[in-house]
Amino acid sequence: MESAINSNQIVRKCKIGKNTKIWNFVNLYGCKIGSDCKIGSFVEIQENVEVGNKVKIGSHTFICENVKIEDGVFIGHHVVFINDKYPRSTNETGELKTEIDWISLRTVIKKGASVGSNATLLAGITIGKNSIVGAGAVVTKNVPKDVIVAGNPAKIIRYLNEIQK
Amino acid sequence: MESAINSNQIVRKCKIGKNTKIWNFVNLYGCKIGSDCKIGSFVEIQENVEVGNKVKIGSHTFICENVKIEDGVFIGHHVVFINDKYPRSTNETGELKTEIDWISLRTVIKKGASVGSNATLLAGITIGKNSIVGAGAVVTKNVPKDVIVAGNPAKIIRYLNEIQK
Amino acid sequence: MESAINSNQIVRKCKIGKNTKIWNFVNLYGCKIGSDCKIGSFVEIQENVEVGNKVKIGSHTFICENVKIEDGVFIGHHVVFINDKYPRSTNETGELKTEIDWISLRTVIKKGASVGSNATLLAGITIGKNSIVGAGAVVTKNVPKDVIVAGNPAKIIRYLNEIQK
Repeated sequence: MESAINSNQIVRKCKIGKNTKIWNFVNLYGCKIGSDCKIGSFVEIQENVEVGNKVKIGSHTFICENVKIEDGVFIGHHVVFINDKYPRSTNETGELKTEIDWISLRTVIKKGASVGSNATLLAGITIGKNSIVGAGAVVTKNVPKDVIVAGNPAKIIRYLNEIQK
Repeated sequence: MESAINSNQIVRKCKIGKNTKIWNFVNLYGCKIGSDCKIGSFVEIQENVEVGNKVKIGSHTFICENVKIEDGVFIGHHVVFINDKYPRSTNETGELKTEIDWISLRTVIKKGASVGSNATLLAGITIGKNSIVGAGAVVTKNVPKDVIVAGNPAKIIRYLNEIQK
Repeated sequence: MESAINSNQIVRKCKIGKNTKIWNFVNLYGCKIGSDCKIGSFVEIQENVEVGNKVKIGSHTFICENVKIEDGVFIGHHVVFINDKYPRSTNETGELKTEIDWISLRTVIKKGASVGSNATLLAGITIGKNSIVGAGAVVTKNVPKDVIVAGNPAKIIRYLNEIQK
């Protein structure tokens, strides 16, 4: 599906893989989504977002430009991505900011990681392979692989190896 | 109303009581909602959710499967319910998870309780009668009756009897 | 534009200024929005909200009655405003609350301030000129001008003059 607009689903200039299901009331534009994914209702995904295969994205999640989500990642409901460290509406001359005034930082969610519902990921974060971001966490720095982080600001609360022992 | 779909409201296989008002841009399916309720815009309510009478649910709230909300409860805006403790997109063999791979935990909001806006309720929580969950709280364990909890993780900050004295 | 309803955009009894862009899947009613603003998808703005000029409001944000947003303010995605200190669904006689039972507190976001994504602003808050509310913050009291606040509850983490030095 290259592009499809109906009254309750906007998918514009996207590349969507095989067997990917997209629910109603979504606003997707200029993004690339792999195969076997599920995208919930009330989700917005902006331009230049890359989503791998077998990714689930829960309802109400907002994914901004410059985010990469690798294969097998779980993104909960109401998850919020950010790419701007000090957001402002106007530039120093008082004019409404445009693309030119904007330094966008890249966020990467590594293979098999899970981001819990209502988590907030600050600009420029990497979440390591298989790690879990707890629900409601505010992640302010990189998360290594195989850990669980939670809280505001998020801290490591457990190592996944320990759970498996 | 058993089922109704128009261009900006999806209500599918639901039982909705008398005098209940449902706003635009909602996605409700397989749930049971009592009488004299108000459901705001951009709300999703999944299958097997039971909502009592005289319940208000604010805009942008997401209510997952296996949640029970008793009579007279107030659910704010952007409230997020969860039923899965360690969410993953794929199972141990690397396939996309299905219903079979999924242990759903039950959440109950007791009569007359209030859940503040942007609160996150982890899987398997009970909120006691008349208690208040503060806005933005992340509730990680059961909340007894007649208290106010707030913070991340949420802690008891006040007993309602004290306020009334 | 005084009033416009199409299948995926509800703008009812609003005053909208020149060059203001409103995305799809919005629910705006009885509010006043200035010129050169941008309003994202899945935004709800209630009655008696005043928004100045050159204001950006990100997707999924909910702005309740009795909020004033001054010129040049940035409101991120998933920001939640509140006007009711102890919300309840029913009044003391057990009836569904109406406008009469409701004391609404006023929130003001001063000129040039920025409110980060997924922030929660409790009822009756003023955010000072040029100040920044960090993403995911839960703001429980007034914020002076020219500071950055973050956390739950939000505390001052930096003074903007220091950054400029």
